[in-house]
Amino acid sequence: MSQQHTSTIYQAELEDLRSAVMKMGGKVESQLRQAVLAFSESDNALAEHVLAVEKEVNQEHLNIDHMCSQIIALRQPAASDLRMLLGMIRTVSDLERIGDEASKIAQMALKSDPSRRGFLPRVHTIFQSADLAGTMLRQALDAFAREDTSEVRQIFATDMELDQHYSASVRQLITFMMEDPRTISAALDDLWVAKAIERAGDHAENIAENAIYIIEGEDVRYAHHS
Amino acid sequence: MSQQHTSTIYQAELEDLRSAVMKMGGKVESQLRQAVLAFSESDNALAEHVLAVEKEVNQEHLNIDHMCSQIIALRQPAASDLRMLLGMIRTVSDLERIGDEASKIAQMALKSDPSRRGFLPRVHTIFQSADLAGTMLRQALDAFAREDTSEVRQIFATDMELDQHYSASVRQLITFMMEDPRTISAALDDLWVAKAIERAGDHAENIAENAIYIIEGEDVRYAHHS
Repeated sequence: MSQQHTSTIYQAELEDLRSAVMKMGGKVESQLRQAVLAFSESDNALAEHVLAVEKEVNQEHLNIDHMCSQIIALRQPAASDLRMLLGMIRTVSDLERIGDEASKIAQMALKSDPSRRGFLPRVHTIFQSADLAGTMLRQALDAFAREDTSEVRQIFATDMELDQHYSASVRQLITFMMEDPRTISAALDDLWVAKAIERAGDHAENIAENAIYIIEGEDVRYAHHS
Repeated sequence: MSQQHTSTIYQAELEDLRSAVMKMGGKVESQLRQAVLAFSESDNALAEHVLAVEKEVNQEHLNIDHMCSQIIALRQPAASDLRMLLGMIRTVSDLERIGDEASKIAQMALKSDPSRRGFLPRVHTIFQSADLAGTMLRQALDAFAREDTSEVRQIFATDMELDQHYSASVRQLITFMMEDPRTISAALDDLWVAKAIERAGDHAENIAENAIYIIEGEDVRYAHHS
C-alpha cells in the first residue's frame, strides 16, 4: 500500500469519527429536548422513547471510544490529530453524561403523578434553563463541526445565565413547598429535573472546552471559573 | 541515548504517572470524608479546607492529563501501555468529579444554618452512604495500584447498596418535610448532600471499570447495568 493511500484511509477514518461524534451529539440533543417535553406534558410514550435511545447512545459512546483508541494505536497520529482524538474521547464522555441526565428526566416523567401536580404552579425558569442547555450543546457541537471557536466562549456566559435560572427555580420551589406542603412531592420532582438540566449545561460547557482544546490547542478547563 | 536508556526513562515516566494518580486519589478520598464530616459537624474551617484542596486537585487533573498526552505523543506506546494511559485519563476525570461533589458538600456545610436543623432528625443512611462511597473509592484505587482486579467487581454490588441507602434517605427526608414543614430547608440541604454522595459512588464505580479496562483489557462500561 502506498504512503499516499494509507494517508487517504487515515483521513477517511478521522472523517468517519467526526461524523459519528456529530451523529451522537444530535441524538443526545434531541434526547434532552424530548425528555423535558415528556416531563412537562406528562407524555409517557415520549419518555419511554428517550430511555430506548439511551441504550443506543451508550453503545455509540463505546464504539467511538474504541475507534479513537484504535487510531491512536495504529496510526501514531501527529500532535494536532492526537489532540483531536483525545478531545473526542472527552467529548463523547460528556455527551453520554448529558444522555444520562436526559434519561433521569424521562424517568421522572414516568414516575411523576400528574394528579398531584395540581397544587404546584409551573416554574417557568426550569423550561428556560432547558432551552439554554440545549442552545449551549448545539453551539458547542457547531464549533466542533466547523472547527471554529469564534463564538464558543459565549457558552461560558450562557452557563452562568443557566446557573442563575437554576437558583431561581430552586428558590421558587422552596417557597411553594413552605407555603403549601401539598406541593412537596411534585416540587421535589421539579427540583430533580432542574438539577439534571443544570448538569447537562455543565457537560455542554465541558464540550465547549474540548472544542477549544481540539481547535486552538489550549486547555481552558478551570480557567474561566473564578 | 541507547534504546535501553530510553526504555528506562519511559518506565520511570509511567511510574511517576501512576504515583501522581494515586496521590490525587488519596487527596480526593480524604476530601470526600472531610466534606461529609464538615457537613455533619457544622465545621466551617474543615469545609474551607476541602474547598482549598479542590484547587490543587483541579491542577493535578490538568497536569496528569498533560503528562498522559505527552507520553502518548512522544513514546508511541504499545497496546497495553496505551490502554493504561487512556484509562488514567478517564480515572483522573472521575477523581476530579468526586472532588467536585466533595466541594458541593463543603459548600452546603458553609451555607447550612445549624439553628434551623433543630427540627430535622438525623438521617443515618446519608452517613452510611458516605462510608460506602469512600470504601468503593479506596477499593478501586487499590485495584489500580496493585494491578489486581480480583476484588474490584464487589464495587458494583456496593454501588447497588449505596443506591438503596440513597433512596431510603430520600424517602425519609420527604416524610419529614411532609410531617413538619419547618424541616424543609434543612431537609433539602440533606437531600443535596445525599445526592452528591450517590454521584461520588457512581464515579468510584467508573474508576473500578477503568481499573478492569486497564488491567484486563475489557471494557465493562454499561455491561453490569441492566
